[in-house]
Amino acid sequence: MYELTVRDHVMIAHSLPDEFFGPAAGLHGATFVVEVTWSRPDLDEHGVVIDIGAASARLKEILADLDYRNLDEHPAFTGRFSTTEVVAGHIGDRLRASMDLTGFAALSVRLREHPDAWATYRVEL
Amino acid sequence: MYELTVRDHVMIAHSLPDEFFGPAAGLHGATFVVEVTWSRPDLDEHGVVIDIGAASARLKEILADLDYRNLDEHPAFTGRFSTTEVVAGHIGDRLRASMDLTGFAALSVRLREHPDAWATYRVEL
Amino acid sequence: MYELTVRDHVMIAHSLPDEFFGPAAGLHGATFVVEVTWSRPDLDEHGVVIDIGAASARLKEILADLDYRNLDEHPAFTGRFSTTEVVAGHIGDRLRASMDLTGFAALSVRLREHPDAWATYRVEL
Amino acid sequence: MYELTVRDHVMIAHSLPDEFFGPAAGLHGATFVVEVTWSRPDLDEHGVVIDIGAASARLKEILADLDYRNLDEHPAFTGRFSTTEVVAGHIGDRLRASMDLTGFAALSVRLREHPDAWATYRVEL
Amino acid sequence: MYELTVRDHVMIAHSLPDEFFGPAAGLHGATFVVEVTWSRPDLDEHGVVIDIGAASARLKEILADLDYRNLDEHPAFTGRFSTTEVVAGHIGDRLRASMDLTGFAALSVRLREHPDAWATYRVEL
Amino acid sequence: MYELTVRDHVMIAHSLPDEFFGPAAGLHGATFVVEVTWSRPDLDEHGVVIDIGAASARLKEILADLDYRNLDEHPAFTGRFSTTEVVAGHIGDRLRASMDLTGFAALSVRLREHPDAWATYRVEL
Repeated sequence: MYELTVRDHVMIAHSLPDEFFGPAAGLHGATFVVEVTWSRPDLDEHGVVIDIGAASARLKEILADLDYRNLDEHPAFTGRFSTTEVVAGHIGDRLRASMDLTGFAALSVRLREHPDAWATYRVEL
Repeated sequence: MYELTVRDHVMIAHSLPDEFFGPAAGLHGATFVVEVTWSRPDLDEHGVVIDIGAASARLKEILADLDYRNLDEHPAFTGRFSTTEVVAGHIGDRLRASMDLTGFAALSVRLREHPDAWATYRVEL
Repeated sequence: MYELTVRDHVMIAHSLPDEFFGPAAGLHGATFVVEVTWSRPDLDEHGVVIDIGAASARLKEILADLDYRNLDEHPAFTGRFSTTEVVAGHIGDRLRASMDLTGFAALSVRLREHPDAWATYRVEL
Repeated sequence: MYELTVRDHVMIAHSLPDEFFGPAAGLHGATFVVEVTWSRPDLDEHGVVIDIGAASARLKEILADLDYRNLDEHPAFTGRFSTTEVVAGHIGDRLRASMDLTGFAALSVRLREHPDAWATYRVEL
Repeated sequence: MYELTVRDHVMIAHSLPDEFFGPAAGLHGATFVVEVTWSRPDLDEHGVVIDIGAASARLKEILADLDYRNLDEHPAFTGRFSTTEVVAGHIGDRLRASMDLTGFAALSVRLREHPDAWATYRVEL
Repeated sequence: MYELTVRDHVMIAHSLPDEFFGPAAGLHGATFVVEVTWSRPDLDEHGVVIDIGAASARLKEILADLDYRNLDEHPAFTGRFSTTEVVAGHIGDRLRASMDLTGFAALSVRLREHPDAWATYRVEL
């Protein structure tokens, strides 16, 4: 199995309006460092999982819809909390919808929200 | 699959009294940076794998029993070497014993002992 | 010269409402990783610049006033942009006002806003 | 399951002479930070996956054949592109050929080529 | 004093053809992670040292002349060794020549060549 | 001004037997990641501050006297606390005593004891 990961980041505001989230219930924000991994059982004819330049460009496109935004006003998160896990899942779903993943075995999205906490969404294909 | 990881650290002394361990046989020490990951197939009703604050607090409780200690005198390691792998396993077992993991798919504990070496214990639930 | 640095972080929302800031003009957010450094020409009687525990606790006190906040509504930033540099300066000024720095040579505050950008405020004492 | 990872690096030149690779088609270079992970279902009699010193020495031996080299002139890459994925696979295959992996469950090799991109090769044993 | 740092990277080939450099004498390569810091005694009217977007764009312009290149064939290094220090100095000089640094106190360029070595060039203005 | 930094680490046990140090009073340990920086106003005839290989070898020599040791029994720390600052100063003094620093402007030693705390000793030459 081979994997290729590219990294980028977004800077967002959001709130998690439920007492479950304690101090994170109010409006605050985060730098999400985003690491996306594509997995394939074998390499393609160029000896890669996916071209790094193409992977980075695709990720940046998806992230452009989130970067410098208040997620409380973003339609993707209406009716649900924009937790780190949910945002990771959203990015993963957007990536899957935007590209042909035939031949790939898995896609995963990791979001680091601060040096001591991160979340990952992984889907087998 | 979703995962949530929190990170903390402990500073311990220990020895590995067997010639197998070469220079690490004598009394020395380590900063173990500890990363614990909880895995679930789906998010809970709050859109999380586990609350980051609750996860961090639980980890800190477990680590309090190790932090600033000489592991050679800690009962958990009587009769076995407190290698990085064994300490990772111990932390994982203590976490499992301290919380209800119904609904979770896996738990893993990674210990980084220096920039160029780390060990991981992972248990499927 | 000796220096001691401790690190912590805050998660804030803010806007920078001026076209100068381009996409950062609107409401967004950041995880600021905060590194504070105390400098002294010589060590004290315990062989330290400042006790790490005391330094960390002092920093956490100062940061509690910013963490999980929308800086647009924080009185410290009324009438000025809460840029990374300005927030670093604010934290430095708050630290200076909260402790006796006799015997210290300098204090600096570094804020990392994402993996590829950070700002530092340094004051000679 | 237990894992042990050691890290080292090599500094190589190479080209990827195909328009597919865009600006990387010409002669350039990379620092590859190499992380190798050995997995075992259980620890051995010393309480380790593999001795860190032995693992580091074995990795350094394998890397000595690549370090400070122009991979375009290295026989292992004749007739194929020395992409990050291919070099990871090559290191993994060389490690497997050089040691008895009875009792191990998997071996993986991660190469970080810059802060925002890395590739992994993983083989189940 | 305030400082602002932005980070980027280049991937280059080069040789250091002198026995002084041991194994680095032959053709090899490096990923240079580049951190550039601008210093000012006071912030400008927008509360910044320099706009992060503008700083990043300027750095990328300067680095485009080095990225994916063989420095042995780059005119800037004719007649001298393209050591990490020399490349840092070259980037610093190019930055100084490309922008008005009135009001700034210092400029520094750090190049990380692998996890365990880096070089810095700093010029007071 | 030019600087060159190399990095290595040691794993030590020690105690800080004074109530001032709270939980660190008892026997515990640390991984100290050690970064040593040499500064020179100009580069030498090879275009370097100091050869990276030579610098790394010199640092490793000095650290060999500390690595895998209990600092409570090391003669260098008799009668004083082996705080991070004191160990940094000790390494700096040993480096100065072991090499000719003519032409250098400064030497500094940074010890990272965990991800959130580090100390630096710097001497102007």
